[in-house]
Amino acid sequence: MRIVLAGYGNVGRSLHRMLEERRRELLRRYSMDAIVVAVIDRGGAAVHWKGVPYSEAAAAKDSEGTVAAGVHGRRGVTVLDLLDEVEADVYVDTTLPNFTDGQPSLSYMERAISRRMHVVTSNKAPMALAMPALLEVAEQKGVRLLYSGTVGGGTPFLGMASEALRGNRIRAIRGVLNGTTNYVLHRMETEGVSLEEALREARRLGYAEADPRIDLSGLDSAAKLVILANHAMGSNYTLSDVRYSGLEGVTPGDLREAAKRGKALRLLADSRRLRVGLEEVDYRSPLNVPANLNSVEFEVEELGSIYLIGRGAGGPETAAAIMRDLVQLNAAQPRR
Amino acid sequence: MRIVLAGYGNVGRSLHRMLEERRRELLRRYSMDAIVVAVIDRGGAAVHWKGVPYSEAAAAKDSEGTVAAGVHGRRGVTVLDLLDEVEADVYVDTTLPNFTDGQPSLSYMERAISRRMHVVTSNKAPMALAMPALLEVAEQKGVRLLYSGTVGGGTPFLGMASEALRGNRIRAIRGVLNGTTNYVLHRMETEGVSLEEALREARRLGYAEADPRIDLSGLDSAAKLVILANHAMGSNYTLSDVRYSGLEGVTPGDLREAAKRGKALRLLADSRRLRVGLEEVDYRSPLNVPANLNSVEFEVEELGSIYLIGRGAGGPETAAAIMRDLVQLNAAQPRR
Repeated sequence: MRIVLAGYGNVGRSLHRMLEERRRELLRRYSMDAIVVAVIDRGGAAVHWKGVPYSEAAAAKDSEGTVAAGVHGRRGVTVLDLLDEVEADVYVDTTLPNFTDGQPSLSYMERAISRRMHVVTSNKAPMALAMPALLEVAEQKGVRLLYSGTVGGGTPFLGMASEALRGNRIRAIRGVLNGTTNYVLHRMETEGVSLEEALREARRLGYAEADPRIDLSGLDSAAKLVILANHAMGSNYTLSDVRYSGLEGVTPGDLREAAKRGKALRLLADSRRLRVGLEEVDYRSPLNVPANLNSVEFEVEELGSIYLIGRGAGGPETAAAIMRDLVQLNAAQPRR
Repeated sequence: MRIVLAGYGNVGRSLHRMLEERRRELLRRYSMDAIVVAVIDRGGAAVHWKGVPYSEAAAAKDSEGTVAAGVHGRRGVTVLDLLDEVEADVYVDTTLPNFTDGQPSLSYMERAISRRMHVVTSNKAPMALAMPALLEVAEQKGVRLLYSGTVGGGTPFLGMASEALRGNRIRAIRGVLNGTTNYVLHRMETEGVSLEEALREARRLGYAEADPRIDLSGLDSAAKLVILANHAMGSNYTLSDVRYSGLEGVTPGDLREAAKRGKALRLLADSRRLRVGLEEVDYRSPLNVPANLNSVEFEVEELGSIYLIGRGAGGPETAAAIMRDLVQLNAAQPRR
């Protein structure tokens, strides 16, 4: 399985290292022979048909800011160039989300699909904006589009729905899908700090993204709701179908007052109402998770409510979700 | 897919009804054409190659205590007779557990496997006592042995490990695997009632099994721990490898005293120590679930801890787990 890996931030690097470190074990356990034939960032690419060594790409990125600075590097090469040129089976996209139009990742994914490569992505923007269309094109071209890393970091909310619950009927989904805002609410409630102070802490701990407005406004949760609902229930929503609000105006007082009534305020995404917003849940509800955890309630026809809780973000965690997609792809492929 | 269904209690009946009610949807969604060609209980069988109607079997069971009392009934037929005689693809075992020697279910399963039928079981006794041997024989005969219904009722603890986390590395499992004892502990803590009183409530609500000692002693949890650990981590334990204790001697005072220190006493099964016993967890830990819920922590190399919470028992819920196994079997079969 020859892989082109785009994006060399925390997720991309973690994946590259993980694929190299687990090489033998992946071969043994899953007969999966994964070779990263190219890595690429904004400065260019590193390409080697036998596999770009992690140490080379990481050192180049650290010292000169781009993977293109190493022995196998080629400065100025773009993802579109690379997809036209390099022979590979899978395009892995770990680039950053752009919720305005999903670009440039959206065109990268489309190009890869048109070249009949499978696509594995952790970039939620193109998925939230165009998931139904992307899945349709992938099906037409006979390739697969997998996206476990777009929701919940490494926690398998998507696999829970499509794999672990396969055969049962999921009726609705509700949950905390953004760790940053949950951390902020948790700190405001338990420590009485202001939203701004809690947000500074979250940044210090590396929980908050560069642009915290995407988290705070509810947009990030809304994007994940679209992807999770479509995946779990076969709907065809896009981001414009979801109404969302965020943490605007909430105070530590609101949170403590709710706690006195045995309630917690949480930023909940709700598939029934296609809505993200602050809601009260019972204090002992599994949706009332502390810190930066995520928690999703799956309402299943035959089972009642099932809850899955875990870290919702993180580079190595998201890389581990991509790894699951690669293992699944590999299992579905005829041996070459 | 022709099914022989043994056991016609809450689980068996629920499954029979579910397969009939969902017939069209299962065909459409999964190309799965499931026909229950025989049902059997202690009084005998009902057999019909076009499918035994649920209404017939249920009415016969209700009025005369055995499915054999209907039009297609044959009194006195045993499971072993049936497996030798009826042409079928899958043997589904919903008989009750016997932890002494796993019989008679163990010999039913062995017979079905030797006749090259797939086996789906919700009976945890034979699995906990002989899982490694049973899986080996099934592999030799080229059939599959699935057992989602043995752990967690309908909550997909097993599928979580083998499907949703496939590609990641599960290091350990810890959790509340018995709903009855959790309910008892919860009531003792929150209402201050005695163990005996809480157990009476659990019985009234239908949570406690006929013989509550299997729950109270920790044996039920130990059996589930064996199955879950083997399934998730490829170990080859049997019930004799697990040390277990239960609720012996615990008082409402112990529970309230722990709560004052921010702790909850829970009956935990732990794969690292191969042990079931009362342990303290943080009050806000996702393992501190209320009522008769189950909760399992999966410690995953790449992800940290992930928690799955849901109802751990129930006839329709367990039937829904068997349904998942049947859908999985169907997907893996070449079309006939």
